[in-house]
Amino acid sequence: MPGTLGALGEDAWIRRLVRRCGAQAPPPPLGIGDDASRLRPRAGHDLVWTTDLLVEDVHFRRSWGEPRRLGRKALAVNLSDVAAMGAVPCGFLLGLSAPGSLPLTWLDGVAAGLADAARRAGAPCLGGDTTGSSGPVSLGITAAGSLPRGTLLTRRGARPGDGLWLSGPLGAAAAGLRLLEAGFRPGRPGPRPLQRAARAALLALLDPRPPLDLGPWLARRGLARAAIDLSDGLATDLGRLCGASGVGARVDLEAIPVHRCVGPLADWLGDDPAGVAVQGGEDYELLFTVPRGREAVLRRTRRVPRPVRIGEITRGGLVVRGPGGRETPLEAGGFGHFRPAEG
Amino acid sequence: MPGTLGALGEDAWIRRLVRRCGAQAPPPPLGIGDDASRLRPRAGHDLVWTTDLLVEDVHFRRSWGEPRRLGRKALAVNLSDVAAMGAVPCGFLLGLSAPGSLPLTWLDGVAAGLADAARRAGAPCLGGDTTGSSGPVSLGITAAGSLPRGTLLTRRGARPGDGLWLSGPLGAAAAGLRLLEAGFRPGRPGPRPLQRAARAALLALLDPRPPLDLGPWLARRGLARAAIDLSDGLATDLGRLCGASGVGARVDLEAIPVHRCVGPLADWLGDDPAGVAVQGGEDYELLFTVPRGREAVLRRTRRVPRPVRIGEITRGGLVVRGPGGRETPLEAGGFGHFRPAEG
Repeated sequence: MPGTLGALGEDAWIRRLVRRCGAQAPPPPLGIGDDASRLRPRAGHDLVWTTDLLVEDVHFRRSWGEPRRLGRKALAVNLSDVAAMGAVPCGFLLGLSAPGSLPLTWLDGVAAGLADAARRAGAPCLGGDTTGSSGPVSLGITAAGSLPRGTLLTRRGARPGDGLWLSGPLGAAAAGLRLLEAGFRPGRPGPRPLQRAARAALLALLDPRPPLDLGPWLARRGLARAAIDLSDGLATDLGRLCGASGVGARVDLEAIPVHRCVGPLADWLGDDPAGVAVQGGEDYELLFTVPRGREAVLRRTRRVPRPVRIGEITRGGLVVRGPGGRETPLEAGGFGHFRPAEG
Repeated sequence: MPGTLGALGEDAWIRRLVRRCGAQAPPPPLGIGDDASRLRPRAGHDLVWTTDLLVEDVHFRRSWGEPRRLGRKALAVNLSDVAAMGAVPCGFLLGLSAPGSLPLTWLDGVAAGLADAARRAGAPCLGGDTTGSSGPVSLGITAAGSLPRGTLLTRRGARPGDGLWLSGPLGAAAAGLRLLEAGFRPGRPGPRPLQRAARAALLALLDPRPPLDLGPWLARRGLARAAIDLSDGLATDLGRLCGASGVGARVDLEAIPVHRCVGPLADWLGDDPAGVAVQGGEDYELLFTVPRGREAVLRRTRRVPRPVRIGEITRGGLVVRGPGGRETPLEAGGFGHFRPAEG
């Protein structure tokens, strides 16, 4: 069928993608269109790499809107993993499987979005593989980044007494997901006073912009001991960081920055704003721990948005301190499972 | 359902995989179970990376037999791409999508096969991502390798006058595929005298062993100017190498080593052995070009199997010289499309 992936051919589509979001500046990376492509780290630098899949009807629905946003998000969430290690993204590979009947216009939208995110981050497409499939569209991205040797930021380095810091407000993406699940579609009529908040929530979900320069900035200055990007929600990902470091944490509920769109929407959705912020996933903000003696640097920084201190690392246990100082266990769970203590 | 991927959970399966085929020797690579893992090339070395997908019912069928072989093949064909660039494989990432109902025994078989190939090549699993899917099983592998700076072997370097060399015999995997397509199954009754040939053909298709040490050996010694691994058949892949280098080639039909299983099977399958060898895919042998002054080294080598000279690079055009010296154009195409000239 004309205008489909099957008609264009898989090799031709990958060439089109590389033209669109491959490296523009000479010299071009060696090996594009070859069996493999070259990754040359700068002298004294290490590389990190990570792979993530976005599968149709699991991670996205085609009905959710513009493919360009999906392309941006697919790359952005992978680059977020790279940046959370303290590395500066340097390139990516795409593994695409899709039915041959997939419209090229849709796929070219995805490519345009990948190109947007690649240009923004300076991380060009360095190759890939495309194949037919009888199943859903699947976008597999492998991203790499580079960092000076000895500055790698893992989940393992947190120590009791470290401050627990967060790069930005939480909850918007989770609110956006709830809106879509409740049948709300961008551009369609909905409750009038909530339209602005809804647009912000959907944007956060469908077109996230992780703070890619923060991880490398922290790592180069030795400001952070451990870091993780928030893909599965604060409760879950803080648990992972603490588990890897063998420590605990106390989070101050009132210190957690809740995205301004969550309040109005949470009312409408019947959810508690703090619960959405603590349990909601896909914010792609950076959570990191800072040795006490280095926290002054973060308090003084003029970075926008300015990171926020939301608690501290303890010897063990994960607790939330609510209004009035009452502490309750912080447990990972779905929306609504979290009920903060009444102060 | 107990005993399925869904019941075990996706994170747990990736941990199981890494335990099985992650790096065994200390220090373990940093970043496993983190947002990304570290790749540290040796001083003065570059890295190459490549990604490839194997999708159920496109690249394999579960009914074709042991999942362990599938795991080995999935990694081996990616490592073949790495080695064809002259690089020594150093690790891989796995992106798996599969329905939650997938039996764990099958998946553990795949993991065992990945572990076999990883151990053989010294290329451990350095991370991955697993996700549910409503569609077919998809194995996406990204592999990396390392090579001394300046020794990268691409498809672009061939020059007229270079000898055209091949690492081993062709056609067995294609014959194996035809057997499976014709309904032949390993272990089931079939024409008696062909059983041994059929077993060899199926083994070549389902459990290929690319000559991973040849590419790095050629690259370090400066013996090859260009190289490509044969995934889509000699005709197609020679066309790619010549296209990238802006040259042509003349192949001597009688010099092409045809796998010993092809003759008997080709009769049974109604195919011409030379046609199967020239057009058949998935041999994963290495095709490379050697400057005239360096060919003596290859003629003297005691490497097993010994590479074979099958023709030479010309200024333009792809031709096959058949018995009697008659030349016909070499065209990429499916089986049976190739008819060598009658001498």
